[in-house]
Amino acid sequence: MPAALLQHPFMSQTALAECNTDAMIAAMLTFELALAEVQEAHGALPEGVSGEMRDLLEAHAFDGQAIAAGIASGGNAAIPFVKQARSALPDELKRYFHQGATSQDVVDTALMLLLEPRLASLDALLLRCRAAATALMVTHDETVMVGRTLMQQALPITFGVKVAHWAIGLEQARRRLAGVALPVQFGGAVGVHSGWDDPGLDFMDALAERLGLSAPVLPWHTDRQPIHALGTALDAVAGAAEKLALDVALLTQTEVGEVAEPAAPGMGESSSMPHKRNPVRCALIRGAVRQVHGHTTVLLNAAAQPLERGLGEWHAEWAPLLDGALLLEGALEQAAVLFEGLEVHPEAMRRNLAVTGGGIMAEPVSKLLVPILGQDVAKRISAEAAETARRQGIPYAEALEAHPELQGQLAPEAVARATDPALYLGSSKRQVRRAITWLQDE
Amino acid sequence: MPAALLQHPFMSQTALAECNTDAMIAAMLTFELALAEVQEAHGALPEGVSGEMRDLLEAHAFDGQAIAAGIASGGNAAIPFVKQARSALPDELKRYFHQGATSQDVVDTALMLLLEPRLASLDALLLRCRAAATALMVTHDETVMVGRTLMQQALPITFGVKVAHWAIGLEQARRRLAGVALPVQFGGAVGVHSGWDDPGLDFMDALAERLGLSAPVLPWHTDRQPIHALGTALDAVAGAAEKLALDVALLTQTEVGEVAEPAAPGMGESSSMPHKRNPVRCALIRGAVRQVHGHTTVLLNAAAQPLERGLGEWHAEWAPLLDGALLLEGALEQAAVLFEGLEVHPEAMRRNLAVTGGGIMAEPVSKLLVPILGQDVAKRISAEAAETARRQGIPYAEALEAHPELQGQLAPEAVARATDPALYLGSSKRQVRRAITWLQDE
Amino acid sequence: MPAALLQHPFMSQTALAECNTDAMIAAMLTFELALAEVQEAHGALPEGVSGEMRDLLEAHAFDGQAIAAGIASGGNAAIPFVKQARSALPDELKRYFHQGATSQDVVDTALMLLLEPRLASLDALLLRCRAAATALMVTHDETVMVGRTLMQQALPITFGVKVAHWAIGLEQARRRLAGVALPVQFGGAVGVHSGWDDPGLDFMDALAERLGLSAPVLPWHTDRQPIHALGTALDAVAGAAEKLALDVALLTQTEVGEVAEPAAPGMGESSSMPHKRNPVRCALIRGAVRQVHGHTTVLLNAAAQPLERGLGEWHAEWAPLLDGALLLEGALEQAAVLFEGLEVHPEAMRRNLAVTGGGIMAEPVSKLLVPILGQDVAKRISAEAAETARRQGIPYAEALEAHPELQGQLAPEAVARATDPALYLGSSKRQVRRAITWLQDE
Amino acid sequence: MPAALLQHPFMSQTALAECNTDAMIAAMLTFELALAEVQEAHGALPEGVSGEMRDLLEAHAFDGQAIAAGIASGGNAAIPFVKQARSALPDELKRYFHQGATSQDVVDTALMLLLEPRLASLDALLLRCRAAATALMVTHDETVMVGRTLMQQALPITFGVKVAHWAIGLEQARRRLAGVALPVQFGGAVGVHSGWDDPGLDFMDALAERLGLSAPVLPWHTDRQPIHALGTALDAVAGAAEKLALDVALLTQTEVGEVAEPAAPGMGESSSMPHKRNPVRCALIRGAVRQVHGHTTVLLNAAAQPLERGLGEWHAEWAPLLDGALLLEGALEQAAVLFEGLEVHPEAMRRNLAVTGGGIMAEPVSKLLVPILGQDVAKRISAEAAETARRQGIPYAEALEAHPELQGQLAPEAVARATDPALYLGSSKRQVRRAITWLQDE
Repeated sequence: MPAALLQHPFMSQTALAECNTDAMIAAMLTFELALAEVQEAHGALPEGVSGEMRDLLEAHAFDGQAIAAGIASGGNAAIPFVKQARSALPDELKRYFHQGATSQDVVDTALMLLLEPRLASLDALLLRCRAAATALMVTHDETVMVGRTLMQQALPITFGVKVAHWAIGLEQARRRLAGVALPVQFGGAVGVHSGWDDPGLDFMDALAERLGLSAPVLPWHTDRQPIHALGTALDAVAGAAEKLALDVALLTQTEVGEVAEPAAPGMGESSSMPHKRNPVRCALIRGAVRQVHGHTTVLLNAAAQPLERGLGEWHAEWAPLLDGALLLEGALEQAAVLFEGLEVHPEAMRRNLAVTGGGIMAEPVSKLLVPILGQDVAKRISAEAAETARRQGIPYAEALEAHPELQGQLAPEAVARATDPALYLGSSKRQVRRAITWLQDE
Repeated sequence: MPAALLQHPFMSQTALAECNTDAMIAAMLTFELALAEVQEAHGALPEGVSGEMRDLLEAHAFDGQAIAAGIASGGNAAIPFVKQARSALPDELKRYFHQGATSQDVVDTALMLLLEPRLASLDALLLRCRAAATALMVTHDETVMVGRTLMQQALPITFGVKVAHWAIGLEQARRRLAGVALPVQFGGAVGVHSGWDDPGLDFMDALAERLGLSAPVLPWHTDRQPIHALGTALDAVAGAAEKLALDVALLTQTEVGEVAEPAAPGMGESSSMPHKRNPVRCALIRGAVRQVHGHTTVLLNAAAQPLERGLGEWHAEWAPLLDGALLLEGALEQAAVLFEGLEVHPEAMRRNLAVTGGGIMAEPVSKLLVPILGQDVAKRISAEAAETARRQGIPYAEALEAHPELQGQLAPEAVARATDPALYLGSSKRQVRRAITWLQDE
Repeated sequence: MPAALLQHPFMSQTALAECNTDAMIAAMLTFELALAEVQEAHGALPEGVSGEMRDLLEAHAFDGQAIAAGIASGGNAAIPFVKQARSALPDELKRYFHQGATSQDVVDTALMLLLEPRLASLDALLLRCRAAATALMVTHDETVMVGRTLMQQALPITFGVKVAHWAIGLEQARRRLAGVALPVQFGGAVGVHSGWDDPGLDFMDALAERLGLSAPVLPWHTDRQPIHALGTALDAVAGAAEKLALDVALLTQTEVGEVAEPAAPGMGESSSMPHKRNPVRCALIRGAVRQVHGHTTVLLNAAAQPLERGLGEWHAEWAPLLDGALLLEGALEQAAVLFEGLEVHPEAMRRNLAVTGGGIMAEPVSKLLVPILGQDVAKRISAEAAETARRQGIPYAEALEAHPELQGQLAPEAVARATDPALYLGSSKRQVRRAITWLQDE
Repeated sequence: MPAALLQHPFMSQTALAECNTDAMIAAMLTFELALAEVQEAHGALPEGVSGEMRDLLEAHAFDGQAIAAGIASGGNAAIPFVKQARSALPDELKRYFHQGATSQDVVDTALMLLLEPRLASLDALLLRCRAAATALMVTHDETVMVGRTLMQQALPITFGVKVAHWAIGLEQARRRLAGVALPVQFGGAVGVHSGWDDPGLDFMDALAERLGLSAPVLPWHTDRQPIHALGTALDAVAGAAEKLALDVALLTQTEVGEVAEPAAPGMGESSSMPHKRNPVRCALIRGAVRQVHGHTTVLLNAAAQPLERGLGEWHAEWAPLLDGALLLEGALEQAAVLFEGLEVHPEAMRRNLAVTGGGIMAEPVSKLLVPILGQDVAKRISAEAAETARRQGIPYAEALEAHPELQGQLAPEAVARATDPALYLGSSKRQVRRAITWLQDE
């Protein structure tokens, strides 16, 4: 695939640089050396062996292409990697390398090691989003705009509370992801440490500690709950980022214009259409997260794996898991920039509040009229005045006061109050305060 | 859809009976009455109103068909339900009903109320599975069988440890599901309690308490993280059940025959083929969980909803969420019966251990020979003897002792030990002990 | 599930009434009676037997609940249905019923029989859409509006050509669906007509003809290509309908207002917000089609079924297939009404064309200036004038003529031409003509 | 992603080498040069210009890394590609390059150009599978084996007819894929050839012809039916290949052993377990096709794209489409090798036929006894004899003849006939003949 042109643009360039073939080989080696050290510490191999191995293998230039070429016959990268590593060891050390381990131990653990920095990076990006969102919430705590349901104007809200809702979604997803364990894998050929008996589990636990991974209850070669939990937690973050991108794209529409992506040289501009600034970051986020959903679907359908080792189900997890994480990291890099530089146009928000000629305030106006006119008449008149305002392009308050059935019955201040969106914001401000408290409370 | 014939067989009949149109109407009413009580307690409506409403509406026979017929024009069940409820109230009470609420408040909360007993039921089923699995693990802690990777015989394990791996998977999923919150929904038209100001959030919190649901940080009309967390946790359970069904189906194959579904009159029998007992429970589980995965995919792709209310995305969640839960409950009912009545055939396990003529013990035999013959010769001879055993149908130990290059070099006891699967079980027994401890430790 | 309140609103009520438990039983009976007739015609059962069966069984009141209750033990509806049917026959006829058939023959064929009228109905709905779209294309062949890319205003198009693009999508999907075969299923227990030898295939072919279904090359118990082709063709229609609903929802936004769903009493209205008319039909379409995608995902993942009969994979197809079809039919009913009654607001389209102050015409203006000023200056000036127009709220032509670097250099007619969206419509009109020709050419 | 180690092993190495960054750049250039030629032929640009461009640009060394780096700001590869190409042209040619085209024209067409050889390669692989399957069908037309439903032994079939069912599935998918159009894309910024008027469609048609692609009715920027048709047709092939891999993996199980993957040095062997030959090709196929299903899910959910250009939905298609095709090609390479070298073990098939002690022949035996003993007794005795045979390990015929209630009542030849699987093969042989005819009939 011309990945550089069709897939990498959606990904984090930093992550792509860190998470490559060499990194995978290094992660497999990290597993094997830690295993040898753990076994040596337990007296399961002669003293000094693990150090010798480390010296020799860390100095060895692994041939990634040869490993790649060797995968076809065994179906995974561990087999040719182990072969190549052994060939770099003197005969007396060969048998201590990969002792009691199986390919899946190597590959599963290596994937966890590759994912660990990605999850750290995702967390950092989500914290950047959180900080930027909090700042926006504070700044726009009184910025009135219209709330929209089914994409129709409904009633006023503040921009601050809208940001709060985005932030709560992202933070829920962040905490969920932060709670997901990255377990070490070590169980040997059939998951029971064949040939090792009881120390097998000790090796597993010690490996987890040494590698900074979590220790599972048991080896999980065909218990893919850890992968399911991880994959769906990534997907949750994707969904929260997608919500942000969807809203920003909608609010950026030419006819709405309430926000804009951060301006940057060349970003989203069109050479032929000078009026145009495309929400490219939103497009990249949405393009990425939809692919994440597809990858997650693979993981859902691969959770049940036969007997003691998958026959394709396991193999099917690798790319969806890593590509999913890299796509998500790319999406969050865009989201962080979006949050940090989002252009907010309060004047457009005000303009749009007036589009219906005050129609969005018909509900509070109706409530004002009920005690005077009864429910049915109140509702009719509030609607008629809104229609007049919209048609004649005059303020709703004016149209109300001019309504033949109302003349003289309403105090102008009451009318002004009932038709002022800024006075009908419900719990918007309290929601912002509550959100900030919750966001900061870990 | 002829649901009774094509869909309900996969579901729990109890759940189907409990989770129907009447239950949905009752749940919507529960929400509205609780709202009135909460508002009355806060002085937001006159004293006694909520009690009057309760008396009138609990006595009212709601017309489910009329509600259903009224959905088309507004797009959800709350609109015709509220209309019907109001028409059953005297004029002076009408405006206090559904006060400050929006359709999504009603429907989202009603769904949570419908799901609450389903989650309780799922938990109970998972605990039944756990108890039955624990018993199986204890009983079969020394039942030797072959472990299989890529569906090929590999090395010995115990049936107890296999059950432990199933149980760990199911229990992880159970704990994940148990940790998922079912939040109340209450935010009004645009999620900011328009017209209520600060008390809006108090109502929301009080509603949660009164309804036994959790209180969200903020209303979540278009923050669908709670739905994502719930839907994917259900899917995790589905995956764990699917793993069980897959393994049982594989072990039940005519040529393997190591386990069988619990015998029950007529269950899985074929009228024309008396030798046949179909693993119908496995088929029903697998049929159900695959549909759950499809429903989950809908939820993943509906997580991002526009602005203050979804335009179809929200509507798309209802059936996948409830059908998903009902299918899963059906699957777990089957899984519990499977676990509780599983027929285990240790003699078939022993027979299958011998299928390769001892070939599966070539690894430990090879280890035995290495000190005597060196690695290469050891490996060759262990393989040759296995081949001889398989061809001549004699025990592996005998073939080894008869091997021309080995005669007299091996103590018969050493050979017996190296070729005995029951002595090459690794950490199987310790894994069972660890699993039991973990399963019981909440 | 409270299907009546949460799922049926998305479906066709007609279809729901037609496609129920009784219809499934009738379809299974249709299969069995046709099989007996075919076998009688081939001399494989005594003359007159099929007629006797038909008389007895068509008069028999099948007990749907008993059939439903009997499914659990065998896993499908055919087993208890056959049992019930046989019990309604005298002993001498019993063995001629369901002779040489297997459950999957009955269920697969019954599903095809249930789907046949659904596909006919979908086709009729798509033809209604096509006719209505064609009328809209003709009416609005000169209705100028702005085209939008990445939801930003770009360049002018006509509403007619937009409708043409919708119509082409739907018609492609219609033709694809029309080309999908609904094959009969008949192969006996293991798909080879055990006990029948060569006539087995003749029975299969004759059954197809008698039932108005297509004859497959071979029985397809675990060759699910026909289901894949059908399910994905339904999904294609769903995607085309979804595109329509997405566009209508976007164009209906309060700030855009270029189209509106057909007005109907109570439809999309809000009791509290008189200014609001929700695009409920779009929401119902989008809610339905997203569920269709989920169902299709199940079918994709169930295409590979083991050996001679699925173990859950087959069972998993039933509900997704039928629910998918019913949801799609519901969506198309909405789409047909949308097309037939769509409110089009050319004045809003004109208003929106002016929103950028003519910025969308900067491209043709730039082309006009290039010969006079060179490419770079031309581009700069066309952009500056657009900005002036937007800020001062004056026509673009006026801003251009007033530009200090342009004064006197442009003929007013040339400027008027270059800034007139109605003169920059590209192939819009020819596309409409071409679309109409293609739509009518079958 | 360490794609070389985790993703490429599932893909065709040839395809990976052909379908890379350079190929994408070449495809974009092919589109642009063809466009210039078409426009020149229509007199829309000066004579000789397209030739000059071709000479200059074919000689130009495009900088893929720079193009990749330039994608972020516009969101697709066409923008930086066009910029780089223009910079390689003299000023007077610049404006003739990419004239009237939009980024999506370039990228969509380039993708079709990249996919064209992939589809050809898939077709060739499917034809290899077809030829190899046909040979297997002929060879094994009389190879008797047991058919299995729900993975339980059911009744006899031939291996030939099993292969026929695989082949029919693959060939249906091949024909479906062969019928899918790869259309050119050309519509300009908003899909109406802005600035070109009527010739726009002529350019589109001429481009299609020149590029060997199909001509769509209209530009299809947001009518993604062509992508849906293509993606789901690829998925259909994936499903057919997955069926093959599932069956081979099941038949290869140690306890079944009826087929084996082609032996190849090192292929599927385990260093420590000499008895083991893993079905690695099946694992690679199954690993690949599950990822294809995930990619297809993305396409299903991206079929509806807003207005005149997707906002992420379009971007989300690229990788799933190309990765899907490359994964599928990898899977088919494995499938072709599998078919061509499949080891078939008729003796294991015979052995497995006897596993139930003749139980699988109880149906024909029962039919034999009915005229003598009536239906109930016949069924009981046929089952009892099968049980005796299984327990005592004697032939079913012998057990029948020894049954106390049957002695002397049955002619030995009749018994022999009824218990001989080779005489109860139904339409197996005729199905093979019919399949061969259909496979060869295009």
